[in-house]
Amino acid sequence: MIMKENLTDMIKNMLEGDTVAIARLITLAENEDPKAKETTKEIYKHVGKAHIIGITGVPGAGKSTLTGKLAKAYRNINKTVGIIAIDPTSPFTGGALLGDRIRMQELTGDKGIFIRSMGTRGGTGGLAIATNDVINILDASKKDVIIVETIGTGQDEIDIKKYVHTLIVVTMPGGGDAIQSVKAGILEVGEIFVINKADHAEAQRAVADIDFMLQLKKDSGNGCGWKEPIVATIATENKGIDELLQRIEEHGQYLINSGQINTKRAERTKSELLDIINRQVAKAVNKAIGKGGERHDIIEKMVLTSEIDPYTAADMVIKHLLQTGKDVINVND
Amino acid sequence: MIMKENLTDMIKNMLEGDTVAIARLITLAENEDPKAKETTKEIYKHVGKAHIIGITGVPGAGKSTLTGKLAKAYRNINKTVGIIAIDPTSPFTGGALLGDRIRMQELTGDKGIFIRSMGTRGGTGGLAIATNDVINILDASKKDVIIVETIGTGQDEIDIKKYVHTLIVVTMPGGGDAIQSVKAGILEVGEIFVINKADHAEAQRAVADIDFMLQLKKDSGNGCGWKEPIVATIATENKGIDELLQRIEEHGQYLINSGQINTKRAERTKSELLDIINRQVAKAVNKAIGKGGERHDIIEKMVLTSEIDPYTAADMVIKHLLQTGKDVINVND
Repeated sequence: MIMKENLTDMIKNMLEGDTVAIARLITLAENEDPKAKETTKEIYKHVGKAHIIGITGVPGAGKSTLTGKLAKAYRNINKTVGIIAIDPTSPFTGGALLGDRIRMQELTGDKGIFIRSMGTRGGTGGLAIATNDVINILDASKKDVIIVETIGTGQDEIDIKKYVHTLIVVTMPGGGDAIQSVKAGILEVGEIFVINKADHAEAQRAVADIDFMLQLKKDSGNGCGWKEPIVATIATENKGIDELLQRIEEHGQYLINSGQINTKRAERTKSELLDIINRQVAKAVNKAIGKGGERHDIIEKMVLTSEIDPYTAADMVIKHLLQTGKDVINVND
Repeated sequence: MIMKENLTDMIKNMLEGDTVAIARLITLAENEDPKAKETTKEIYKHVGKAHIIGITGVPGAGKSTLTGKLAKAYRNINKTVGIIAIDPTSPFTGGALLGDRIRMQELTGDKGIFIRSMGTRGGTGGLAIATNDVINILDASKKDVIIVETIGTGQDEIDIKKYVHTLIVVTMPGGGDAIQSVKAGILEVGEIFVINKADHAEAQRAVADIDFMLQLKKDSGNGCGWKEPIVATIATENKGIDELLQRIEEHGQYLINSGQINTKRAERTKSELLDIINRQVAKAVNKAIGKGGERHDIIEKMVLTSEIDPYTAADMVIKHLLQTGKDVINVND
């Protein structure tokens, strides 16, 4: 295990941008090591400066390549970049994702950039908490821009909005309807739309599809002052990347000028808090109702006899947790 | 609002399979009406008889058509069927999904079948609780088979395993790799695999892909006695549906013979309980930290000054909830 002295040193080095220290602190966060909690407590006063960008969209649209080129473009204007690539943990797609990561490796060797691939572990809370902690670490390590890229499948898509200031939705031409291929619920919340692989024959139709959708959205009264741009890119050829960067910067400026950045920060903070609380409560509940847990009898009665219904059982478990309240706060697994 | 007398009548009628009563009780559940809680309490002793089947997989693979044909096949052997089709709520894809539903309408007019489309509302807990409640209602209304079909996007994919006894993963040939197109994490948990649109030229390759993946899974020691079958179907032409039904019945029999049905029921019950508890706690937390909430100051301090870190804030909110404990149990929004 890591000693207290070492943690203090690591945090100090991380705050100065040391890559090894950043990597080790992220590992602690990923493993939900108690030291991660301590780290967040220590560094929280240093967070809040980075522009957090989310990249999501259709699988196969070239998000990883786009992320890599965008990071390079940011380095060209001398901004430091942290990248969190969220991969659903799967033994069967592991190879393909690794390929994507390798494409981004050409970026490394530059100390102004930090890339980390994170697994989702198939869980809900686990990803959420680690993602927030990792964003905080990169933020505190003085990265100007943090890019959170999701692989385009799984629940992260729905959640990513909560973590970022500027959400980019990437789609591509072909394969039928550019809109339908994007995960439902994401289109409505995108702030910048990218049609990648724009050299494809149907690129113009894809732009028109998104444009039509944005028109519908505006008509339904969801407009909020920001006119979502549509950017055509060919990431592999580095085309459209500078325009995309410009749109991102414009959105960042818009958030500051309109004061919406504070709303975004408040939302992120609130969901971060809720994630932590939910996780702690879930651990306490699991402890109570899991095999060998204090209220395991409830589950047995529910399952074997249908004697107790789930709502009554929920009240029983919550009452139990309230009585043994400290368990909810100090749960280590 | 619905009076107590009416709820009792409705439940009585629902238990006898009355379609109008089923529909009205489901609406109460979807709206998280307090009457839904009462309904679950009343009917819980009648649940636990249905075979719950999940259908998930690639968008566009023809899951809705397959679900419709499968339901018909079950009607042919005189089993009653309840269908829950989970649609992510989206104003932009609404039309397409409606089309899918209309295709299933040919089934209605038969009292042995009940079809309901449910929106996810973009939330986490909301879907979970309503889905469990709706499954319970259909189960209590004496449906022999309940099919939960997800639209192939969003978080339901990750969660569906928790709700069902037999999980069917549907994919289709073409579009490159049949495996990669399926959401990561789902392949590992599928119990029956369907290659729909099997008249496509690349159908054989898709079967081989899935077969290879299952081989890998077995080699990595995840085998648990059930050899996952791969069924080729052409749902639009009703081909392969009887074989699929047979495989589902075999899996149902396997669960009973191996005793695994009890494990499945225990898992579902536990996650049902956890969903309810998480929701109640989240409501209490939101009440405490939301605008106008008792601990709203915490959020403000976190956001504006970084004075409090999220882990410390979480402890503060949980302590507050423990002190005002009854709020966690009796939260109505």
